[in-house]
Amino acid sequence: MSVTRIVVDAMGGDNAPGEIIKGALEALPLYPDAHIILSGRREAVEAGLSGKSFPSDRLEILDAPEVIETGEPPVKAVRTKKESSLVKGLMMVRGGEADAFITAGSSGATLVGGQIIVGRIRGIERPPFAPIIPTATGPALLIDCGANVDARASHLVQFAQMGSIYMENVVGIRRPRVALLNIGAEEEKGNALIKETMPLLRELTNINFIGNIEARDIPAGGADVVVSDAFAGNIALKMYEGVAATLLSEIKKGMTSTLRAKIGALLVKPALKETLKSFDASAYGGAPMLGLTGLVVKTHGNAKANEIRNAVGQCIEWKDKAINDRFVEEMGLKK
Amino acid sequence: MSVTRIVVDAMGGDNAPGEIIKGALEALPLYPDAHIILSGRREAVEAGLSGKSFPSDRLEILDAPEVIETGEPPVKAVRTKKESSLVKGLMMVRGGEADAFITAGSSGATLVGGQIIVGRIRGIERPPFAPIIPTATGPALLIDCGANVDARASHLVQFAQMGSIYMENVVGIRRPRVALLNIGAEEEKGNALIKETMPLLRELTNINFIGNIEARDIPAGGADVVVSDAFAGNIALKMYEGVAATLLSEIKKGMTSTLRAKIGALLVKPALKETLKSFDASAYGGAPMLGLTGLVVKTHGNAKANEIRNAVGQCIEWKDKAINDRFVEEMGLKK
Repeated sequence: MSVTRIVVDAMGGDNAPGEIIKGALEALPLYPDAHIILSGRREAVEAGLSGKSFPSDRLEILDAPEVIETGEPPVKAVRTKKESSLVKGLMMVRGGEADAFITAGSSGATLVGGQIIVGRIRGIERPPFAPIIPTATGPALLIDCGANVDARASHLVQFAQMGSIYMENVVGIRRPRVALLNIGAEEEKGNALIKETMPLLRELTNINFIGNIEARDIPAGGADVVVSDAFAGNIALKMYEGVAATLLSEIKKGMTSTLRAKIGALLVKPALKETLKSFDASAYGGAPMLGLTGLVVKTHGNAKANEIRNAVGQCIEWKDKAINDRFVEEMGLKK
Repeated sequence: MSVTRIVVDAMGGDNAPGEIIKGALEALPLYPDAHIILSGRREAVEAGLSGKSFPSDRLEILDAPEVIETGEPPVKAVRTKKESSLVKGLMMVRGGEADAFITAGSSGATLVGGQIIVGRIRGIERPPFAPIIPTATGPALLIDCGANVDARASHLVQFAQMGSIYMENVVGIRRPRVALLNIGAEEEKGNALIKETMPLLRELTNINFIGNIEARDIPAGGADVVVSDAFAGNIALKMYEGVAATLLSEIKKGMTSTLRAKIGALLVKPALKETLKSFDASAYGGAPMLGLTGLVVKTHGNAKANEIRNAVGQCIEWKDKAINDRFVEEMGLKK
């Protein structure tokens, strides 16, 4: 196995740089083929590394004095902050000096930067952003949840294939069940885009297409790859996150509302934690942006060290399995 | 207050006719202005009523020998089963012999039937289907979650106004906050439909429009009326239901996985039940289909008596507040 060179944005996310650097340091002994480049303000990164032991031949610093904040308008930020940890990191991927880029920073800037700095694989019409959500039976890939709305059927056909290849090779799901996000399970349902896409997906021989899926069936584990345009995908993703957050917070409230409940909560907690562990997406790293010449991974904004560490593993798997070559071959793209 | 004549479909839903009839009987003493017509197979309805006491001048049976099953193709079912409880009930609304129709049966057939049998108010371009979902701070109306996808901006403008009038007058939310379902809070985000609709909603002076809402913020209570085309609305609704169902079932699993947890669960249960009670949508009746010449209400398929009873109250409120007249006046529709 060859070395995978990964830029990790030390300045992105709520817990930067502490947890980001911690995650990178945890990854190095786990993945002997990883070469990590921490991009960020040199002093901040050096301070984070000081006193830590690490293989110095596999960790370097990319000095980037600027930082793109989460609230900044993405296009402007990417265009003007040339010295930011994000832009400098993505430039390394563009130039082939790095294979992959991981950030917990601004989603918008990451999507814009991935597209305009790293650039698409020849023949890929749109690079989808594909977060993994946990379901009752394992992880599911929601592809696309990016910023490019108003998709065409040909985009969705490529998303289906890229998603299937990714889940099979990087996440390790054999013959992933690919489904089209729709408002009913019946063939005749859906909007104009769905009706145009459905027969095209049925024709594909290189994916295990199982037809429509209703959003209701995703959390129960109805499909491994859920294909959608970015607008619907985003709504599905955000509703998933919103319901989970609100429900868990209400349950917590209920469990601490009386003395009796508090005692019960103490007893219930360990088992509950164990069950809900399977609902932790951080095990799969971050959300990949696929179809670019290098891999761009966006973790949750509040990512802790473990998510960064797992994202490093995700990048290595992606490189080792030569995902981009598979895209070109299996999707019949021109070289 | 005048009498509200309500047809209740005794044959629709998982718990028909038992719970449906039970709900109707519970409603009669609560709502002295309700006149209920139970539509369904006469023998089945009579069997359900036998031995019960009720004001016989306010309850009648509409004999309907046919039943539309949930799985049937809606358009065909509505066209061919003229003697079904659904078609015969909707025909009464069409003819003005009843004000409203309540069913726990096939959503598809209800939407199709509402549209082609009851018919729209003059000037209403599309009748939206608007379920209420519970949030951390109260109920929110998702409008539209119906079957008519590929909406136009003018449809969404009408949905916003109808939703606002409904929530203010039937559910009792003062100056309901109306938001447009989008994939980001920023003004420039969204697909072509959103971009066209946004300025039109800003111009409306008869609603309290608060801008975009991300799906993530709906369960936390970010808006009272969430405006959307039926495709996105359906996905939001179904994802809401799916996550809640899966998460609660996983939590239940965790709580019974060890002896220790089981004991804790017993202690926690009463408080948890109390907290989660606010997440029960059945208090608001069923999902109204708005903009028709009469009110059509679809409850959950697994509705119990209490949801049917509350749906009766919802129909009475709708009639007493003269919602359809308000639509015509406040939306400037031609009489």
